[in-house]
Amino acid sequence: GTTLLDRRSDKRTDSNWLSKKQTHPSSVYILFSNLSPLVTLAGGTESSQQPEVKLCRLRHEDVQQFLAPAGEVTLIFLGVELRLPTEPRGAPGRAAPGEEHEDGLTAWFALSIEPPSAEKFKQTHEDAYFLHPPMPALLQLPEKEAGVVAQARSILAWHSRYQFCPTCGSATKIEDGGYKKTCLKEDCSSLRGVHNTSYPRVDPVVIMLVIHPDGNHCLLGRQKRFPPGMFTCLAGFVEPGETIEDAVRREVEEEAGVQVGHVQYVSCQPWPMPSSLMIGCLAVAVSTEIKVDKNEIEDARWFTREQVVDVIIKGNRRLFFVPPSRAIAHQLIKHWIGMNA
Amino acid sequence: GTTLLDRRSDKRTDSNWLSKKQTHPSSVYILFSNLSPLVTLAGGTESSQQPEVKLCRLRHEDVQQFLAPAGEVTLIFLGVELRLPTEPRGAPGRAAPGEEHEDGLTAWFALSIEPPSAEKFKQTHEDAYFLHPPMPALLQLPEKEAGVVAQARSILAWHSRYQFCPTCGSATKIEDGGYKKTCLKEDCSSLRGVHNTSYPRVDPVVIMLVIHPDGNHCLLGRQKRFPPGMFTCLAGFVEPGETIEDAVRREVEEEAGVQVGHVQYVSCQPWPMPSSLMIGCLAVAVSTEIKVDKNEIEDARWFTREQVVDVIIKGNRRLFFVPPSRAIAHQLIKHWIGMNA
Ligand SMILES: Nc1ncnc2c1ncn2[C@@H]1O[C@H](COP(=O)(O)O)[C@@H](O)[C@H]1O
Ligand SMILES: Nc1ncnc2c1ncn2[C@@H]1O[C@H](COP(=O)(O)O)[C@@H](O)[C@H]1O
Repeated sequence: GTTLLDRRSDKRTDSNWLSKKQTHPSSVYILFSNLSPLVTLAGGTESSQQPEVKLCRLRHEDVQQFLAPAGEVTLIFLGVELRLPTEPRGAPGRAAPGEEHEDGLTAWFALSIEPPSAEKFKQTHEDAYFLHPPMPALLQLPEKEAGVVAQARSILAWHSRYQFCPTCGSATKIEDGGYKKTCLKEDCSSLRGVHNTSYPRVDPVVIMLVIHPDGNHCLLGRQKRFPPGMFTCLAGFVEPGETIEDAVRREVEEEAGVQVGHVQYVSCQPWPMPSSLMIGCLAVAVSTEIKVDKNEIEDARWFTREQVVDVIIKGNRRLFFVPPSRAIAHQLIKHWIGMNA
Repeated sequence: GTTLLDRRSDKRTDSNWLSKKQTHPSSVYILFSNLSPLVTLAGGTESSQQPEVKLCRLRHEDVQQFLAPAGEVTLIFLGVELRLPTEPRGAPGRAAPGEEHEDGLTAWFALSIEPPSAEKFKQTHEDAYFLHPPMPALLQLPEKEAGVVAQARSILAWHSRYQFCPTCGSATKIEDGGYKKTCLKEDCSSLRGVHNTSYPRVDPVVIMLVIHPDGNHCLLGRQKRFPPGMFTCLAGFVEPGETIEDAVRREVEEEAGVQVGHVQYVSCQPWPMPSSLMIGCLAVAVSTEIKVDKNEIEDARWFTREQVVDVIIKGNRRLFFVPPSRAIAHQLIKHWIGMNA
């Protein structure tokens, strides 16, 4: 599995359980300031090329000071540590007799604190720092921790941007361990029935490696704001009423003027900027002439398979380079090279 | 292709072009009231089993009366009719000399009118009616028209539920042919940078056919609100920070207590209730015992391949039935039968 936590959505409405876990000494807190997670450098990774960072796993006693003035902080229940497959879900764990809340589950919370508190905290925790800017730094996290950060950061970003009810403009309150937002105006129509206004956003994005009709070139592009020399897969938001495959065709046509036929899903990656789901595809072009839309991208070119292998496998950055290996664009390119081999 | 229209997002900001097209006699209007599209019965479909409905394609003169009092209506630019592949995109079309706006493109708009206007309209157009309730009726539309309705209905639903800026609670104005919403408060932070608060929502949902480890059974469930006897694939919203594959595993475990290993994407379908993207997968179970979560579903059972073939191919509804053939659940089940054959 690629996940660290079982989200246990059933516990989100169990406020009794949640508040016991909040003060439990085994519970893990991860800290955010301005949507950046608190991390530290991981030791013993001399062999790896990229610097490896890891999340600071704090305890209740470390963050207690921030929890006291309720309202100033946003607290999200992330889930419980996954048990080994041999332990059945309903197993009592290390429950001591008479203590019904000792279910042995290790709960994780995300806590967002204000910048002044963050400053104070860093002064007493020398090895820790807030990972900023989040991208591409977040890609340095181990995959499982990146998933937890994506979950926490998306929800926190939702709370910071969606403070008011979009249906009536009133203030809202946070519920269900952070996963629900309810309008405070009693007769608001958002309270009648179930509406997506109450739940966090996930924006589906297609990201695609376009393959030349000859099978031996792929299309990579770059935006103005990229570091010089970096090229990557084209991408764009899925629009309402559109399939993944149609979104791929539309975006490639819009950005590069290239027509796409067959589209094949490969894999996906949550991208918490603020809350996207990157849906990775291979797309087979049926035309080859490139007409770049300068409003969207700066450049797009066909690269040969050899050029891409040079960059990805041999690390030769002379001609161009691509995003790091944990980015889905990198994985799509690698998938294509492997597929064609 | 599966689409009727080229969305031409580049035209959304071209207000001059948009207003010319609005009054152009070739432009097509589709009408909505309470998020239900105006349709009529399609002729000459005696051979098909299901009743076939089609969208009413109106002209500017038909809807002119509703366009006059600006503000009361919501008008969305949907795109232009797709040209034949032989016509290059930049082709001048049927342009008359001196008329620069005669580009030969047939623009489509969606128009939402208030219930009293809708009543009046129906009195003068006897064959037309508003398709209500939208589900499962929308599944009667031809696939290409269903895509256009999904697009229009999702955007209209967004405008009706998201009238206020979620960042500051102020009123907003509609821009870009209906695809953007801008806060009217000058110093709102939603106006600094690009934020998803300004763009329509698309909620990704996973829908999956779970295959028994023996390869010869699949898992279907039912909700209380379903018609008696109907069973279908399990489904649920993708959460922030989650991959499609992890969402499939979590939902199957939550709803039916069954563990899933390998997950494979099959196809997807926009579902405008109000704006979901149904992502269809096959999921291979690694456990078999079913524990139904009664809060989420009413029942879930393993059905044999023979039982499913009986329902899907032979139309035998004695034991149970499944959603109609245009629903993605039906397509997933069919895909599985074919795959196993
Ligand atoms: N974007 C969303 N829109 C509506 N419901 C959501 C959303 N995200 C999560 N949910 C949850 O899904 C439940 C509705 O699921 P369903 O019965 O399948 O429509 C709600 O009660 C929420 O708990
Ligand atoms: N959910 C969304 N969030 C942000 N931008 C969006 C969204 N949906 C569509 N867009 C459009 O995508 C552009 C940003 O794309 P990008 O530069 O790839 O981040 C914006 O200028 C919008 O026109």
